[in-house]
Amino acid sequence: MNGAQAMVRTLAEAGVGVWFANPGTSELHLVAALDGEPRARGVLCLFEGVATGAADGYGRMAPDPAAVLLHLGPGLGNGLANLHNARRAGTPVVTVIGDHATSHERFDAPLQSDIAAVAGSVSAWMRRPVDVAEAGKAAAEAVAAARAAGVATLVVPADVAWSEGGDVAVEPPALAREPVAEGALEPAAAALASGEPCVVLIGGDATRRGGLEAAGRIAAATGARVLCETFPARLERGAGLPAVERLAYLGEMAAAQLDGARHIILAGARRPVTFFAYPGKPGDLVPDGCQVHDLGADALGPLADAVGGDAVPALQVAARPDVPTGALTGESAAAVIGALLPEGAIVSDEANTSGLWLPGATAGAPPHDWLSLTGGAIGQGLPVATGAAIACPDRPVVCMEADGSAMYTLSALWTQAREGLDVTTVVFNNGSYAILSMETTRVGAVPAPPEEGTITRDMVDLSRPALDFVALASGMGVPASRAHTAEELADQFGKALAEPGPHLIEAVVPPLG
Amino acid sequence: MNGAQAMVRTLAEAGVGVWFANPGTSELHLVAALDGEPRARGVLCLFEGVATGAADGYGRMAPDPAAVLLHLGPGLGNGLANLHNARRAGTPVVTVIGDHATSHERFDAPLQSDIAAVAGSVSAWMRRPVDVAEAGKAAAEAVAAARAAGVATLVVPADVAWSEGGDVAVEPPALAREPVAEGALEPAAAALASGEPCVVLIGGDATRRGGLEAAGRIAAATGARVLCETFPARLERGAGLPAVERLAYLGEMAAAQLDGARHIILAGARRPVTFFAYPGKPGDLVPDGCQVHDLGADALGPLADAVGGDAVPALQVAARPDVPTGALTGESAAAVIGALLPEGAIVSDEANTSGLWLPGATAGAPPHDWLSLTGGAIGQGLPVATGAAIACPDRPVVCMEADGSAMYTLSALWTQAREGLDVTTVVFNNGSYAILSMETTRVGAVPAPPEEGTITRDMVDLSRPALDFVALASGMGVPASRAHTAEELADQFGKALAEPGPHLIEAVVPPLG
Repeated sequence: MNGAQAMVRTLAEAGVGVWFANPGTSELHLVAALDGEPRARGVLCLFEGVATGAADGYGRMAPDPAAVLLHLGPGLGNGLANLHNARRAGTPVVTVIGDHATSHERFDAPLQSDIAAVAGSVSAWMRRPVDVAEAGKAAAEAVAAARAAGVATLVVPADVAWSEGGDVAVEPPALAREPVAEGALEPAAAALASGEPCVVLIGGDATRRGGLEAAGRIAAATGARVLCETFPARLERGAGLPAVERLAYLGEMAAAQLDGARHIILAGARRPVTFFAYPGKPGDLVPDGCQVHDLGADALGPLADAVGGDAVPALQVAARPDVPTGALTGESAAAVIGALLPEGAIVSDEANTSGLWLPGATAGAPPHDWLSLTGGAIGQGLPVATGAAIACPDRPVVCMEADGSAMYTLSALWTQAREGLDVTTVVFNNGSYAILSMETTRVGAVPAPPEEGTITRDMVDLSRPALDFVALASGMGVPASRAHTAEELADQFGKALAEPGPHLIEAVVPPLG
Repeated sequence: MNGAQAMVRTLAEAGVGVWFANPGTSELHLVAALDGEPRARGVLCLFEGVATGAADGYGRMAPDPAAVLLHLGPGLGNGLANLHNARRAGTPVVTVIGDHATSHERFDAPLQSDIAAVAGSVSAWMRRPVDVAEAGKAAAEAVAAARAAGVATLVVPADVAWSEGGDVAVEPPALAREPVAEGALEPAAAALASGEPCVVLIGGDATRRGGLEAAGRIAAATGARVLCETFPARLERGAGLPAVERLAYLGEMAAAQLDGARHIILAGARRPVTFFAYPGKPGDLVPDGCQVHDLGADALGPLADAVGGDAVPALQVAARPDVPTGALTGESAAAVIGALLPEGAIVSDEANTSGLWLPGATAGAPPHDWLSLTGGAIGQGLPVATGAAIACPDRPVVCMEADGSAMYTLSALWTQAREGLDVTTVVFNNGSYAILSMETTRVGAVPAPPEEGTITRDMVDLSRPALDFVALASGMGVPASRAHTAEELADQFGKALAEPGPHLIEAVVPPLG
């Protein structure tokens, strides 16, 4: 077998069968090898950022990672932003980048560039086999690396793919996770027992049911406040699950949430900092005099066992808003979503400012998963929804998307149509990059006189011309409609959920504020 | 003045006033500074790949470079593929990437990544001022570097932008271009005089009128064959200009063009190699026993003076195809374009396989410029057309675009609509990545049994669902129509050229072959 076949079969043996792909000439032996592997599935994406975001969404929801197939350095570049988000999410992804044949490198042909430098910026692990005999083994190690560390990148020279002499390899066993170090829990346990104000900040795996229950027991037993990181990769939430408040995006609101804490116990989350720097404001959100205990997500269960006793976590009560009527706003739209969100939904949330009310309105909805914008690189929502729908074909996927962000990776809709995915996308069209309007004031960027701020206003204005998302979705084979009122949104959202396949609803809302 | 103001004013002083921008929070002081500079113009793009491609198109046509404003590492990633094309084109571009404040770096906030590693892969020059006093000077040097070497990158920490203490700086004088070295021309001149078959392969600046005339004189005087690199950044051509054949994309055709040559004289072009490697085929296109003389573009005039005497270059005769009737194919569509292409047109060509007949059909059209896909990273055509239209508002821009490639950076249409640019886009919709169908056979990628090549076929199939470019263009404010016959294309193309502002025509054609 050739190197491509060895890699594709090795990945399939290891459970990696889904390939989100935007191949070019240098990847065609890998594509042909997919045809020889019954466990392989190729999901064509019209842009690499869709492929990488879909692999991220898949990896957040499925037990095994997906592979993503990219064409040389420029293909990697196009996929880089969503690999950045995957890296921040800690999502296992096997990135496969086709490269020129090793014999061709010396020519510096037009498509050649420094793949290693670019891939290195997002990869926890990277290998470029140059001998076909290494191909299968490299693929096997890539899967293990992805499971352990996130984005694992294989750079595959075309001649390694096409040469005979490949071997299927077996994924190496996972390294045992480090046990929680002896004595590591004591300071945190002591803090929780001290009566001093404590915050348990959870992230990573700890935002799944097990972690939430452990955190909830700690809170119930000790009175600690539990918060979850601002942008969790996958938060399980809804009626019957332990409720958790997210750390706010805006630094001043996050500071208020943490105000007075004497101890912050990190469990899978990172030390809280502001998303951006602002002139004259602190970037570090840890209050003065507050001690930080960084335990890692795995310590949460043992910590709960140590301090939680028989405490029972407070569970979210089932509660939905009424379906509102009248003007469509971010707030009324959120109520519609909260009223109708189906059980088991997977919510891909990139609604940005228009989504401010969504977490509140859906808190008491039936159990669902919430996938958020982990790395802050917009253009994630539609691709992540696409990948999640491939991972979980029996669950409804709901994508809450901002107009500006939607335009980065809109062709995800085409892949949704092609694959018949059950994704309902609501695009909040407020005709602006509203978050930048807000941030212009917050960073103190005052347009200099004598001008009147024309360019500053222009750079956040998406209304000239207006984007028609109904036309755009239709152009890619996704049935679409537009809602101007809460009733229309409720009607259209309900119908979209009831019908199989993808749908898009353009929700026309005013900008926040 | 703050650092942002110092940089914006310095760039404006140096002639860099157009900013293709997709800013985020960390760039807002730069945006505000644009408002204080009357010579600055902000052109909003909905995706960074549009902004970088537009800067490339602008730089190929305008006397001064444009600036492109990107948001941190992910914004750079989104713009990377078209910066790769700009690098290969040698286009001067001033890339400005906003970064976190220097005080914020230590927090590794969600959007942080290794900007230098990624930018380094496309930049001929890069600087990251960390003191506001350096900001203006860095900007001035960036312009000089862009003019001298291509993509020059400024990474601007937010606190450098917002801090007071900036100074406007003056662009340093250009380094004198190296004179052609004493004796450098003699071997090439001797080869041309020897009677042995010679090819003059031109590229870079030599594909402009002056270079073409020099090459044409050499050919007329010596019988040498002149070829131009496969994907010139800007080729001046049409009736009355010295005609030049392009080196073919397919290695076997290029080898036939070079067959028998005993000398290849490179003038601004690089040594000819195949675009990709193919099993068992050579990547180097220089025939056995052929000597290569690499002179650089600047040597072409002196070489013509040395060997050309009073020879007069053969000029392209004015000639247009008749407007065809009947079925629309790549060939008949090219005849329509050739029949109607207006004088002074700027053609952005990313038609790929559907464009095979375009160079022939337009060869005798009135003088025009031809901008091609220099780095092979698709998604260039629409953005380059956008930037060229900003650079040359009085010239008609025609974008010849393939369906698959169009989907990478389609939102360029929105910027065209917003700016009222006179761009006529023809999207050749053949429902496939036809070039990959062709390359699958050429690289010998045979789907392994027992499967039937389903995935291999699927990965090149854009017909399921069909892309409706009329809907897509309409959704971004660009009037659009669809042509199924040559007559329809002629009618629609003529009307689009006659009306100001952007138009899109979807030309429904069968795949090549």
